[in-house]
Amino acid sequence: MVPHLVTALTGPINELEQRMLDAMPTVERWFRLEWMEHTPVFYCAAHIRNAGYKLAPVTTDLHPNAWHHLSPDMLPLAVQAAMAAIEKICPEAKNLLLVPQSGERNADVMANLLQLRRIFHLAGLNVRMGSIDAGVRQAVSLPVPGAEPVVLEPVHRTKGRVGLKHFDPCTILLNNTLASGIPGILEDLSTQYLLPPLHAGASVRLRSRHLHSYEEVGKRLAKLLGIDVWLINPLFASGGAVDFSTGQGLPELRQQVDAVLAKVRRKYKEYGIPDKPFVVVKGDLSNTALGVHPLRDAKGLDQLDWSHCGGAAPRGLHHVIVQEGLSTQERLNDAVAEPVVYMLDRYVVGGFYRLQGPGAGTVPLAFETSAGLPQPGAKAGASAPNRFYMYGVVARLAMLAAAYDLEASDPNAVSYD
Amino acid sequence: MVPHLVTALTGPINELEQRMLDAMPTVERWFRLEWMEHTPVFYCAAHIRNAGYKLAPVTTDLHPNAWHHLSPDMLPLAVQAAMAAIEKICPEAKNLLLVPQSGERNADVMANLLQLRRIFHLAGLNVRMGSIDAGVRQAVSLPVPGAEPVVLEPVHRTKGRVGLKHFDPCTILLNNTLASGIPGILEDLSTQYLLPPLHAGASVRLRSRHLHSYEEVGKRLAKLLGIDVWLINPLFASGGAVDFSTGQGLPELRQQVDAVLAKVRRKYKEYGIPDKPFVVVKGDLSNTALGVHPLRDAKGLDQLDWSHCGGAAPRGLHHVIVQEGLSTQERLNDAVAEPVVYMLDRYVVGGFYRLQGPGAGTVPLAFETSAGLPQPGAKAGASAPNRFYMYGVVARLAMLAAAYDLEASDPNAVSYD
Repeated sequence: MVPHLVTALTGPINELEQRMLDAMPTVERWFRLEWMEHTPVFYCAAHIRNAGYKLAPVTTDLHPNAWHHLSPDMLPLAVQAAMAAIEKICPEAKNLLLVPQSGERNADVMANLLQLRRIFHLAGLNVRMGSIDAGVRQAVSLPVPGAEPVVLEPVHRTKGRVGLKHFDPCTILLNNTLASGIPGILEDLSTQYLLPPLHAGASVRLRSRHLHSYEEVGKRLAKLLGIDVWLINPLFASGGAVDFSTGQGLPELRQQVDAVLAKVRRKYKEYGIPDKPFVVVKGDLSNTALGVHPLRDAKGLDQLDWSHCGGAAPRGLHHVIVQEGLSTQERLNDAVAEPVVYMLDRYVVGGFYRLQGPGAGTVPLAFETSAGLPQPGAKAGASAPNRFYMYGVVARLAMLAAAYDLEASDPNAVSYD
Repeated sequence: MVPHLVTALTGPINELEQRMLDAMPTVERWFRLEWMEHTPVFYCAAHIRNAGYKLAPVTTDLHPNAWHHLSPDMLPLAVQAAMAAIEKICPEAKNLLLVPQSGERNADVMANLLQLRRIFHLAGLNVRMGSIDAGVRQAVSLPVPGAEPVVLEPVHRTKGRVGLKHFDPCTILLNNTLASGIPGILEDLSTQYLLPPLHAGASVRLRSRHLHSYEEVGKRLAKLLGIDVWLINPLFASGGAVDFSTGQGLPELRQQVDAVLAKVRRKYKEYGIPDKPFVVVKGDLSNTALGVHPLRDAKGLDQLDWSHCGGAAPRGLHHVIVQEGLSTQERLNDAVAEPVVYMLDRYVVGGFYRLQGPGAGTVPLAFETSAGLPQPGAKAGASAPNRFYMYGVVARLAMLAAAYDLEASDPNAVSYD
């Protein structure tokens, strides 16, 4: 399937895979019923870690930006899923406005935008790209190697709607994490569909809320599968509000780090896992400058690496979370390979491996088409498609959790209490 | 794409292709809105003829039985479409009962059943196969080369529901044309989903009704495309009720044959088509023994070939239709190649070429995955994917017409008049 990749096809994870395969009709039915009650996030990428003894998403990205890394064979699946999504959200749709990330326009960024445009154009929409950057005041033509240039136009607001010159979209697709805050131009768009909604933006969406939702849905899936939810759910705790530059809040964080480590240690003992546990400390908001800090004990908090912010801890109070660390057993040569699963509407439409490690950079290894389909007859651990089915289940669980957390945090939600 | 195949990539059909590509967002939006009002037939195969100057479906099969001929690469698309269909019809579904065609159990039949079972199993259902043949009184295990045997069990009826021993399905999928009539065991199943419904059976579904529906939706699509509907719609007329063994009704049929031929002749003149027109006379019901008779003039009615029914015309009155004949420009070596497009829910999920001609038999040539997606940049006629997009549009038009004709003929329809 994926050459030279050690996909941790052995070990305790095989039991989990076997249970998921055996329960396939039950699992699929459960997802179907969940999607009746909860609207799928429009699109989503789940970054997964396979630790050999457990499997869990480490990031649930609601503005996935590597669509060009999916195998070309998977494109028809993405187009079909896009058709299904449009049918549900806005069947009368003609025009889709794609709002890309602000800033850099390198080859990767452009390739992603082209692929997104292609998917939604082939699904039957007129797609144009609009920038909400103050710097973009007139249409700019951005060159793309081997393809037609991408035209990026300034987004205008008139009569409570946003659009481009001579282009009134019914749906606005954000491929922009809105990391620097929610832009006024996108607020209160009551007559257009804005996907994902503003409260999915990086300046407001809380990791802790997502982890709570994930735990909630994870418990229910685990019960269906007859497994310990820990096998698909990393332990976590709130680390409170901390100012790393002054030390305010550090004692409480220390306690939480110790508490999570103690819980993980007990689980390792229960399952006979010889590894030394670690936790990861990170901001509750993904747009903070805090970074991600793996720690083997609370003492590590005194020697955090702040090189990514000029050597000094960022000032001010930041809410942080403490999460069980997951090593990954998957390797390509010496690089850690992290499966990334792409979803559109409620469907898995592809994926790739993100490689990280000495000199590896990011080398995408596309899942092949057939990877989307399990092979019920094959022995657990012996078949890459079955492994990918398991990844797809966990990825959809993360997407479902995201649907829950967006519902819970929706500022416009109507309460029936 | 498909080797050695003359796919009529040149000629006037290119203009039609170009118009469909240019109008893609309009066409897709139109289909989306139509599917909001009209329920897609569950699954469907459209047999298409590309005459070089026009393109039209010649058969719209509501019990498609060659799923094994689709390319394996297309399987994920079929599974995803099956998931979408189940979600809409019966989200709480666990069990699906597949009812195969009665009679012959050759390798082709078995391969088709296995593929259907695979698609719905991978979509998340428990699938079992049940026979409604009186001859099947206990479970029979049918050998399949290179695969696990297929177990066919007798269908039982209890308390207004049908099922197998220890298997209560929520949905019954008919892969049986019910050519010999509607079996009592399947009637009045008010608490189960029977797909397609009984009035889609070959003993009751009228070709004339389908052609009327096709003409109706064809006119609307043609208007959207700015084309003459004739370019996608074969002319037809009712030929009345005829007893070929006695000659009763023949004079009226003769008139209709002449009338349709005259209309086709005028169209040929209008478009400068040098071919000699022909019509096809066939039963209004597809399960009659009449066969299919191509005729260049009404005199041909006196020399019909009845070799397929033992040399003599079948007795009794049969309703017949007269339809404009379409030659096909597509050839593989000397065999006529007829594209067959497979659909599930409202999606095109694959297709293949059915070859007919001296010594050719039926050689399926699977469409490749990428054939599902048009290439908007390419010149008309220069790209097989764009050709297949056009086939997919006409195929979906046939499916939409089938949705209309099933609605109009539904004996249980609630009338709001």
